[in-house]
Amino acid sequence: MMDKNKHNATSPFRDQWVEFIRNLQDEICAAIENIDGKARFIEDLWERKPGEKGGGGRTRIIGHGNIFEKGGVNTSVVFGGLSARMREVLHIPKNSAAKDWLAAGISLVIHPFNPFIPTVHCNYRYFELCDKEGEMVDSWFGGGADLTPYYLFDEDARHFHLTLKAACDLLDPKLYPLFKQYCDDYFVNDHRNKERRGIGGIFYDHRKPEEGRPGKFWFDFSRACSDAFLKSYLPIVSRRKDHSFGAEHKYWQEIRRGRYVEFNLIHDRGTLFGLKTKGRTESILMSLPPTVRFEYNYQPKPGSEEEKLLKVCLSPRDWVE
Amino acid sequence: MMDKNKHNATSPFRDQWVEFIRNLQDEICAAIENIDGKARFIEDLWERKPGEKGGGGRTRIIGHGNIFEKGGVNTSVVFGGLSARMREVLHIPKNSAAKDWLAAGISLVIHPFNPFIPTVHCNYRYFELCDKEGEMVDSWFGGGADLTPYYLFDEDARHFHLTLKAACDLLDPKLYPLFKQYCDDYFVNDHRNKERRGIGGIFYDHRKPEEGRPGKFWFDFSRACSDAFLKSYLPIVSRRKDHSFGAEHKYWQEIRRGRYVEFNLIHDRGTLFGLKTKGRTESILMSLPPTVRFEYNYQPKPGSEEEKLLKVCLSPRDWVE
Repeated sequence: MMDKNKHNATSPFRDQWVEFIRNLQDEICAAIENIDGKARFIEDLWERKPGEKGGGGRTRIIGHGNIFEKGGVNTSVVFGGLSARMREVLHIPKNSAAKDWLAAGISLVIHPFNPFIPTVHCNYRYFELCDKEGEMVDSWFGGGADLTPYYLFDEDARHFHLTLKAACDLLDPKLYPLFKQYCDDYFVNDHRNKERRGIGGIFYDHRKPEEGRPGKFWFDFSRACSDAFLKSYLPIVSRRKDHSFGAEHKYWQEIRRGRYVEFNLIHDRGTLFGLKTKGRTESILMSLPPTVRFEYNYQPKPGSEEEKLLKVCLSPRDWVE
Repeated sequence: MMDKNKHNATSPFRDQWVEFIRNLQDEICAAIENIDGKARFIEDLWERKPGEKGGGGRTRIIGHGNIFEKGGVNTSVVFGGLSARMREVLHIPKNSAAKDWLAAGISLVIHPFNPFIPTVHCNYRYFELCDKEGEMVDSWFGGGADLTPYYLFDEDARHFHLTLKAACDLLDPKLYPLFKQYCDDYFVNDHRNKERRGIGGIFYDHRKPEEGRPGKFWFDFSRACSDAFLKSYLPIVSRRKDHSFGAEHKYWQEIRRGRYVEFNLIHDRGTLFGLKTKGRTESILMSLPPTVRFEYNYQPKPGSEEEKLLKVCLSPRDWVE
């Protein structure tokens, strides 16, 4: 069994990445509390039970704030032996020397109360496979961020995408268009006529060393994108937090939150992987919105602001042109 | 391609079953409207688009009633050629002559507004496989009913189970205990410490002719169970519909409805099969509750009525002893 506390000469990123995500978690929580002005994060430190293998996490939950109705900003570092199921899910060849895995990531979802402020999600993670000697045999980075507005403000969508693009461009200007497309292709309710859950962002997975982009490249890339989170989201919160709203706007928000639930529970690989590999349920499902509505065959009025949002979910736009 | 309108001498149950479920749908809808006293079902007749293959259904939705906040009572008869995915899901051997499939069923979910009235679900279905000549090569019945109370009344749980037991016993007294157990093993949120979504009922699947139980046996059994629905549920509605309740009871109902959503979207084979084989999304997801709440790590107070309900979901009881 891998010992996460033991320095491993073949794993150049593990310790730095863990330190990075923990510091980032502190920074994000402080900024979220600061803008909310009322709510405070509660922290649950958890460890996996012996039967579930090693590691644990730092779950931080906020709720009932001036701005934020529910949110979680979590980090975790978990590891264990590769089960048959994980080998299948991770597409690990039978002749691979990989025996153990380790995953370290930061994951956040924030659901504001005001339906004119979008919900936001981001998640950046590092994955490692080791052989029976504890030597690293494979590793990769993955992650992304996406915005789920209930009402569309072009200005907000542009800001979110431009901020992420600027972070990507620091490393390689070829990547934003690619990962924007991945994101549009990933956060999709296939069973809803391919409706996206929002206006997207960026998404990438299984990024391993490749020509011109060593492991260090993806490490730096993931740090740059993670670091862009607060810049991508807080200005939108500031702009919309005093927007007046009524019961009809909350109604629409709760309908759209229903689609968020559908995506997370039916399609999201991270959620399903977590639940099926006996991850900590409460930490995984902190992503679900606080109040939700499911109505049979709900259709927004033609020409309404609600329909305008739906249309952009059905046909993603280029926000940085 | 199978023609559902063509009489098929090798399929003794198809036409009778389709007629039976349609009549039962009428009967159930009339009884539900009658006890509600206000709401009326709206009906959506739908046909599968050519790319999705043949058949269609009769979706009936009720809402905003005196008693019922949201509900659906649906029938459908759908058929098509077996895809690779369906062969896999249905465990059809490669050397089988089966080429086409047909499924005919009734499916209902009723969510009352008053948290002292339980949510109820039932679903009975007939499945057929035919060869390239349209001759039936295999067929089976499946179905069940389960009750999801928010507050536990032993009297109601006993009534529900005793009514289903009486229906099973008409055909064979060995079956109720077996199918009660299947039900307790099926409607389970594995990711929630094996919490059941309610107090169960009966559940059975893939019931084919076997020694002492020809196809006709399962046809009669499924009719008997289906016919028991109104008797199993309406007396409970009558007993609880005037029970007074407050915001704290609605809150708990919405928390529990969250678990219903989790079960249906993460675990329910019928829901996932329907969505992944391009069934009609709105008809499938009518099962989702109207308003739902997801709260991080919600725990009922020790000794409370809410905790009493949770305990019975964690440790199913024998209700007919």
